[in-house]
Amino acid sequence: MSLNDEVDLLKKIPLFAKIEPSKLKLLAFTSERLTFQPGELLCRQGDPGDTAYIILDGRADVLVDTPGGQISVAKLGKNDLVGEMAILIDIPRTATVRAIGTVSTLAISKDLFFRMVTEFPQMGVEIMRELAHRLENTTAQLREARTRVS
Amino acid sequence: MSLNDEVDLLKKIPLFAKIEPSKLKLLAFTSERLTFQPGELLCRQGDPGDTAYIILDGRADVLVDTPGGQISVAKLGKNDLVGEMAILIDIPRTATVRAIGTVSTLAISKDLFFRMVTEFPQMGVEIMRELAHRLENTTAQLREARTRVS
Repeated sequence: MSLNDEVDLLKKIPLFAKIEPSKLKLLAFTSERLTFQPGELLCRQGDPGDTAYIILDGRADVLVDTPGGQISVAKLGKNDLVGEMAILIDIPRTATVRAIGTVSTLAISKDLFFRMVTEFPQMGVEIMRELAHRLENTTAQLREARTRVS
Repeated sequence: MSLNDEVDLLKKIPLFAKIEPSKLKLLAFTSERLTFQPGELLCRQGDPGDTAYIILDGRADVLVDTPGGQISVAKLGKNDLVGEMAILIDIPRTATVRAIGTVSTLAISKDLFFRMVTEFPQMGVEIMRELAHRLENTTAQLREARTRVS
């Protein structure tokens, strides 16, 4: 794929939508494409993690270990960002992510992640928004779970 | 308070710790000090919100409406950031925040918030980390609540 094709592809990812194409070239140069086969793990709950992934194509299952066994808590698809929690707060992976079919990703190392959000603050804003949305959803679920208990 | 005293005060807030003092002058100029009396509300659940607060001094109660009445879900103190969720994702306030004693805050408007995280990406990184921590805590509580239900 030519560099321009790669930049065109990155421009379509909402997280990068507001970044100038000239700057996306840096990302195209320094990020890595990783493909996972069906059933393969992008990450495993409890492992240390220093890579985030943007899903370019395919779907993946987010699995969490519970006392009753592993349960699926979410599905990920195109343009979803996963694995940034372990990068942001140095905690082990909070879930296992398993490729459903073939999953093509952009793998972003911890170093690159921090370089990107520093050089492209707009990307930082998009990630803050994404985290805020997830926090809002999780808080709503927690409220509901507690209402059922009480 | 002189501008230098104000910058010294801002430097002690972890969210701004990595921002150069020269840049903190912008913040000292453009942010507003707001003091809340005991019992006064910094924000009310359900209201629209376009201001975030950094608590400079004092403590506040985070209250959430439930079918069984209002419950306290957290306490906030010095250096805590509150109210940024409504700014980030344009949702109504997700909780009521009430001053316990006298609470002194730095009020940051939506415009200033986005200007700051764009000009000081390191502040964006700190906010991402804070949101990631909260998400991790809420997810852990949700896991525990669901384990009790099942």
